[in-house]
Amino acid sequence: MTHAFKVAVLGASGLVGRTMLQILEQRRFPVSELVPLASPRSAGRKVTFAGREYTVKAVSKEAFEGVDLALFSAGGGPSRQWAPVAAAAGALVVDNSSAFRMDPDVPLCVPEVNLEQARRPPKGIVANPNCSTIQLLVALAPLHREIPIRRIVVSSYQAVSGAGSRASECLVAQRRALAADEVPEPGAIGAVLEGDLLMQWTPDPVTGYQEEELKLIHESRKILGMPELMVSPTCVRVPVDTGHAEAVCVEFEAPMTPERARALLKAAPGVEVIDDLPAGVYPKPSMAAGRDPVLVGRIREDLGLAGGICLYVVADNLRKGAALNAIQIAESLLLS
Amino acid sequence: MTHAFKVAVLGASGLVGRTMLQILEQRRFPVSELVPLASPRSAGRKVTFAGREYTVKAVSKEAFEGVDLALFSAGGGPSRQWAPVAAAAGALVVDNSSAFRMDPDVPLCVPEVNLEQARRPPKGIVANPNCSTIQLLVALAPLHREIPIRRIVVSSYQAVSGAGSRASECLVAQRRALAADEVPEPGAIGAVLEGDLLMQWTPDPVTGYQEEELKLIHESRKILGMPELMVSPTCVRVPVDTGHAEAVCVEFEAPMTPERARALLKAAPGVEVIDDLPAGVYPKPSMAAGRDPVLVGRIREDLGLAGGICLYVVADNLRKGAALNAIQIAESLLLS
Repeated sequence: MTHAFKVAVLGASGLVGRTMLQILEQRRFPVSELVPLASPRSAGRKVTFAGREYTVKAVSKEAFEGVDLALFSAGGGPSRQWAPVAAAAGALVVDNSSAFRMDPDVPLCVPEVNLEQARRPPKGIVANPNCSTIQLLVALAPLHREIPIRRIVVSSYQAVSGAGSRASECLVAQRRALAADEVPEPGAIGAVLEGDLLMQWTPDPVTGYQEEELKLIHESRKILGMPELMVSPTCVRVPVDTGHAEAVCVEFEAPMTPERARALLKAAPGVEVIDDLPAGVYPKPSMAAGRDPVLVGRIREDLGLAGGICLYVVADNLRKGAALNAIQIAESLLLS
Repeated sequence: MTHAFKVAVLGASGLVGRTMLQILEQRRFPVSELVPLASPRSAGRKVTFAGREYTVKAVSKEAFEGVDLALFSAGGGPSRQWAPVAAAAGALVVDNSSAFRMDPDVPLCVPEVNLEQARRPPKGIVANPNCSTIQLLVALAPLHREIPIRRIVVSSYQAVSGAGSRASECLVAQRRALAADEVPEPGAIGAVLEGDLLMQWTPDPVTGYQEEELKLIHESRKILGMPELMVSPTCVRVPVDTGHAEAVCVEFEAPMTPERARALLKAAPGVEVIDDLPAGVYPKPSMAAGRDPVLVGRIREDLGLAGGICLYVVADNLRKGAALNAIQIAESLLLS
């Protein structure tokens, strides 16, 4: 007999929330009762789980009664308000927002990288890292365990679904407009992304960086337990629906070879090496979308830094970048 | 009285060739006679220059008789065959192919950066660098003149028009197919680029790099006269028609500040600083397309390297990246 869990999903009708429901089902997570929740604005929507339709209820204190696992993906505000409530009701909260990521009493977890840090979370809350951090560290942690990393230079090519379902629909509308020789509307994206490149994340006036870029720095440092880790990030939104790509150059404390890096990555959990450029084989967003592994290719000597390595990392930003990683955290803490 | 020149354009009906004709006209280059040329396969096509329609003629030795300036953009093969012929006929050849770029007797020139190297070319041929190199060096040379550069990490976001007019049309067809929920054809691009990211440049089996990436290394070294310059490149094709972007992090021999870099770039020829992220102001391909300057934004401290600078460089790959730079070389050598 296996134990089954009462699972609440806050933000159940959003893009990540719906992906969470799919993944709970695909992975046969033992759900005794599902409680799909949302802000009052989104309550009343329908979601499907295990062949049954559910009406999403407005989040409330009562909704968390008896809940064992609460998966949160409704944004920072709802997380700040409701995560402590769910945790006080006895639930393990896995929060996909940025609300608690830098809280020293909240573990920030990529199961392949730092699961031990997530055991017995002091506040009953474990934070799920940002999409671009997760895939970067799944690819780099196996190398870092072999030879410590000193510096990471990372340029992202980020898909629009990271900005939610309205942004995703907006890109489709912009594509249709351009295909019909009409002028595309900025819509939910706030600018024309189709046929262009954007940098629309919240700017930090002090550093001149986008918050998305600062997350790559601070989350990587926390997860790897390296407050001094040097990270040079640039984040760019590209007209792709799903699948973030990252061009990465890494400097190590001692020389790393491409052969050693490739062997480490082939043996690494959560990684699939897709790397035969002469045969035209390299990772693409279209290959990652809908799949679980972090795809790594272009593993090569850094011609600009002796002993360094460059690689290209692509993953489904909704799955490993959000919903899958959150559920893997829950599996690791509740099922094993 | 100004002197006027007999100008041959080889590859006149291609995307870069047509842009050359536009730019000759827009800049009122003193053309006494235009000779539009192409390979026998493309001969017979029509092009327009200064309000007059021309029939493109098949390239031949006779076609270069009396030609003062020969602008070549028909690929490496035709350049290797015909550039020596045109030069022997007395023409200054400005070649946009990669055929002569690494020839020690052929200057490789970005006028804002190394015009002096292009004076009195020994073979009568001056090579135009690759698109991604030109915009990178227009942005970095002003900084390098102040404090020598040690290392450049560059990730590109390259538009499809760099692959020619058939690729450009193919992206439009792919967009229309996707917008109509049909399956897009690989077509002239050879893969589906719309909604995805590609790395389709010729792979170098020895290094594991794409030729496009190796050009960034070797051309930058030659143009800056720094055989030891360290460059770490990654090149990615994005579903954008025109306008290459580059995310760049630069290490200098001594610390550079963002304020100093911004001041240098504001005063630099060929550069337009577009840099106010808190106000949502940063360069985009759509802002660069059809314009001459190299747009530079996101000028900021490299948070991953003390004394380093990161920036974002966007330019029209057909204009400054190809046709404009070639014509600026010709202007510099023939008109001044």
